[in-house]
Amino acid sequence: MQFGIVGLGRMGLNMARRLRRAGLPLAAWNRSFDKTQALAAEDGTLACQTLEALVQALHPPRICWLMLPAGPAVDEHMALLLPLLQPGDILVDGGNSWYKDDLRHADTCAAAGVHYVDAGVSGGIWGLTEGYCTMVGGPAGAVAELTPYLDALAPPEGWMHCGGTGSGHYVKMIHNGIEYGMMQAYAEGLGLIQASGYGKDIDMAALCHLWNQGSVVRSWLLELAERAFAADPALAGLAGHVDDSGEGRWTVLESIELAQPAPVLALSLMQRFRSRQDNTFQDRVLAALRREFGGHAVKAT
Amino acid sequence: MQFGIVGLGRMGLNMARRLRRAGLPLAAWNRSFDKTQALAAEDGTLACQTLEALVQALHPPRICWLMLPAGPAVDEHMALLLPLLQPGDILVDGGNSWYKDDLRHADTCAAAGVHYVDAGVSGGIWGLTEGYCTMVGGPAGAVAELTPYLDALAPPEGWMHCGGTGSGHYVKMIHNGIEYGMMQAYAEGLGLIQASGYGKDIDMAALCHLWNQGSVVRSWLLELAERAFAADPALAGLAGHVDDSGEGRWTVLESIELAQPAPVLALSLMQRFRSRQDNTFQDRVLAALRREFGGHAVKAT
Amino acid sequence: MQFGIVGLGRMGLNMARRLRRAGLPLAAWNRSFDKTQALAAEDGTLACQTLEALVQALHPPRICWLMLPAGPAVDEHMALLLPLLQPGDILVDGGNSWYKDDLRHADTCAAAGVHYVDAGVSGGIWGLTEGYCTMVGGPAGAVAELTPYLDALAPPEGWMHCGGTGSGHYVKMIHNGIEYGMMQAYAEGLGLIQASGYGKDIDMAALCHLWNQGSVVRSWLLELAERAFAADPALAGLAGHVDDSGEGRWTVLESIELAQPAPVLALSLMQRFRSRQDNTFQDRVLAALRREFGGHAVKAT
Amino acid sequence: MQFGIVGLGRMGLNMARRLRRAGLPLAAWNRSFDKTQALAAEDGTLACQTLEALVQALHPPRICWLMLPAGPAVDEHMALLLPLLQPGDILVDGGNSWYKDDLRHADTCAAAGVHYVDAGVSGGIWGLTEGYCTMVGGPAGAVAELTPYLDALAPPEGWMHCGGTGSGHYVKMIHNGIEYGMMQAYAEGLGLIQASGYGKDIDMAALCHLWNQGSVVRSWLLELAERAFAADPALAGLAGHVDDSGEGRWTVLESIELAQPAPVLALSLMQRFRSRQDNTFQDRVLAALRREFGGHAVKAT
Repeated sequence: MQFGIVGLGRMGLNMARRLRRAGLPLAAWNRSFDKTQALAAEDGTLACQTLEALVQALHPPRICWLMLPAGPAVDEHMALLLPLLQPGDILVDGGNSWYKDDLRHADTCAAAGVHYVDAGVSGGIWGLTEGYCTMVGGPAGAVAELTPYLDALAPPEGWMHCGGTGSGHYVKMIHNGIEYGMMQAYAEGLGLIQASGYGKDIDMAALCHLWNQGSVVRSWLLELAERAFAADPALAGLAGHVDDSGEGRWTVLESIELAQPAPVLALSLMQRFRSRQDNTFQDRVLAALRREFGGHAVKAT
Repeated sequence: MQFGIVGLGRMGLNMARRLRRAGLPLAAWNRSFDKTQALAAEDGTLACQTLEALVQALHPPRICWLMLPAGPAVDEHMALLLPLLQPGDILVDGGNSWYKDDLRHADTCAAAGVHYVDAGVSGGIWGLTEGYCTMVGGPAGAVAELTPYLDALAPPEGWMHCGGTGSGHYVKMIHNGIEYGMMQAYAEGLGLIQASGYGKDIDMAALCHLWNQGSVVRSWLLELAERAFAADPALAGLAGHVDDSGEGRWTVLESIELAQPAPVLALSLMQRFRSRQDNTFQDRVLAALRREFGGHAVKAT
Repeated sequence: MQFGIVGLGRMGLNMARRLRRAGLPLAAWNRSFDKTQALAAEDGTLACQTLEALVQALHPPRICWLMLPAGPAVDEHMALLLPLLQPGDILVDGGNSWYKDDLRHADTCAAAGVHYVDAGVSGGIWGLTEGYCTMVGGPAGAVAELTPYLDALAPPEGWMHCGGTGSGHYVKMIHNGIEYGMMQAYAEGLGLIQASGYGKDIDMAALCHLWNQGSVVRSWLLELAERAFAADPALAGLAGHVDDSGEGRWTVLESIELAQPAPVLALSLMQRFRSRQDNTFQDRVLAALRREFGGHAVKAT
Repeated sequence: MQFGIVGLGRMGLNMARRLRRAGLPLAAWNRSFDKTQALAAEDGTLACQTLEALVQALHPPRICWLMLPAGPAVDEHMALLLPLLQPGDILVDGGNSWYKDDLRHADTCAAAGVHYVDAGVSGGIWGLTEGYCTMVGGPAGAVAELTPYLDALAPPEGWMHCGGTGSGHYVKMIHNGIEYGMMQAYAEGLGLIQASGYGKDIDMAALCHLWNQGSVVRSWLLELAERAFAADPALAGLAGHVDDSGEGRWTVLESIELAQPAPVLALSLMQRFRSRQDNTFQDRVLAALRREFGGHAVKAT
């Protein structure tokens, strides 16, 4: 057994399952051991209660694949794992980390003779069945060692070695930035139809289904939109409160750092921020100014 | 008496007063005669109960200056006035009409030998005391005839003959488009300060006052912002519901017709539209898509 | 023979071919008769040299399907055709017309007892083989009559009766608006990767191919991007000059008319306008202002 | 003598002059001593060749006011100065530093018992005559000590103690972000006029002058625009290449960190990035996609 997964959250758990379904032996560790045991019972994954046990269960060169929330959790677990590993082992960060953290992490690993690989993994809750599109950065030798596992995780032709350290997360970051823009484009377009005189007669699920039959805008996101509308035709059951999760922000930071324009990606992020506010201070400033110069009526609170 | 004003709304009434204060004789007509009579009592304006009376009170070449809401009201009153006028008279549209309507109106007037002038008037409720910045389009001869009245309405150097028919309203339209962008810039910036950790300690009226003392962003709009914050430090008494009134929209239409980019002006308009909505359909589309692909939590309604 | 097509341009010609391949009898008229004859020689379409001949070749209720450039050409050919048709016949506008023109056209047709149907057709040069995703507006009876033809033109489940007059073109307009936003999102994201330190090592065709294997942003547009990069890895052979063709503009006009925000769709259009300019006046204004207040260096021309 | 200025660049030199004109005694240090000597010859400022000499020339509590480029220069000079100062002295960063650097710098100073004050200074090359609008952050006691100097630097009512450490630079940062948005709004509006049919007849300097007479958009920036157009009516002598200098970027970073929308400020920054590119990769992606799906003509390079 060469491969251990650290973290059985929404992503890690299904990735472990997919590796097992491909017949690959697997050790797993998770903060709460219950989940690890449940997985072991389900598919024969080796349940490890400690990181030490996980590392000892693996044959060198070991592959420790972290699936943890981006941020401090990655740093903490890396600090715990590194002393347990030996030169030639491979540490993979498969979470949604910032590529600049990869550069730092790779240096730390290099000091211990450990190879560091960053992997951006797309596919969400659908990855278990459809495979995870995976973007990989790091040294070629380590990536070669990972190949059987990447082949199992990804759909056919579904992973790529993008370049040096950080390139996997970089490409994944931009992927998510694009995703924000595409989602916003669909949302605005569907919003116009819904607001128009034709809107009340149009079944949004049917429309999304239609557009997926040969139109220029067909996509997987549009298939998901169809699913959502089929379950709730006016999306009445959820609030228009849109979170974001790091990569969209980093994409805009990157645009600024490179002085490379990405106006639609930036604006898509801003619209998400806006979605979480009501009766905003800035709109009250506008209303106040209109009243001041034009005597325009304002709505009182 | 050569000059008659048609329409004593918020703008027309104060413009009449300003002309009278400059010592110019004036006839006025308004839909409701009460208002006309009140003005007459106040400053000796000649109150006319009918458009016929108004026209008869004027010596040729007559100047009939319309201050009416843009749209059908202008067409209607022009249709009533034109048969009463004679060749050489001048009809001025001083409202916020679309410049394309001016082109049509000028043709109609020309068929009756009447000169048509479009005048974009800025200054809002402050114009009475500060003067109305006025942008004028139309034939030079007619504009020459208007000069004493424009001199009285505007502050010193405060009116300009911009060019042929429609140019006055065109320049005024763009003026208002710029105004949308400036207002949005201030609102966003002040919104950031208010949302920051420093916000709770900063007196917004004092800040606006400060910035008006020698900073790069000093402006009259910022003076108005100071007034608004002085009266209501958190703008708690009004709702973040921002209307728009034609010129901002036309500016974006113009950008599209000319294929000339105006992204910030367009976006400023869009943000006003957004201010009037809550829990939007398009944000619900985004939330639904996030749930579909990532299993991300959504807020229920 | 019931069905005649008017206009054998890039879209019309392939649509005729697809109908013939489905075994449907077909008459065709085109401004230049050569093209019509070539089609006739190719697949047995009945070539008509005049609109009169076309109409006479059809059995009532006749279906005349116009595939003409949006704008005056549609009005002109409709004016020529209507006197030749008889009550109960059907006139279809399958071009990219504005939905407001449909409302006008439907009234004109109704006065002659002719049914009017608007059809928004997507699929571009790929429609011949993949089918045309078709959005249909108009009276249900006429749409029922069109069904065998729509079934042949579209891929399975690939056409929809969207609602009353104009709804087909309305939905197609929004479809194209969304397309602008999606394209801009991809372009910005790929632009960031290309500008980054990782860009020089990344094969864009391979990346687009990768993302189409299970990622969240997979789509047909991304397949096309892969094709484009495979043929020209740096897109060095074409200029960054991006045209637009009506629907994107109408989408923004609609956003304004409905006061329904569509910031990303508007901005995507604006960026296309920007792509056609160099050394812009507005950027020179910015440079001039920076010099004026800050003494900042400017680049001379 | 209590006050020493460190750095006689474009800003620092004129600020020193303004302090001297107010009769305040002043010591100065600059990297190149020539400039310091020239200033001394001009107005009696005490020229110091070393930072040690500068500090020794001052009576406690000393005020060392840094006017250096934001970034490493500030850190370096602070490291050199701190060992020379004594508890109770005051170190002011009057450059355009990031407020997060202030937090760090204040801690460093506090360890040495030195008070740290951040001052955002607006006014550019006009400050010498008009005064510098100054935004001050830091402890009240230190700000009180600075008062005579701030009174001299600023126009009447032209400085403000905004709050704790970093608040001065924070407010200045937002000030500049707003400036970007206002400038973009003017540039877009003037760009539309210039591109319109009316543009060729309109004298831009006259128009800017007009708008400054009582219109809603009157501002100091518009006065500067008038100056620029008066000198070069079509701005033909400079290139549409627009730089940016930190604060605009930080404003957008702040918007992202606070999740507080600032779409127009972000877009204004992006448009500056765009101004520095030609024949962009992202526009070539758009052109390529249009060709792929629609067979639309593209411009070859």
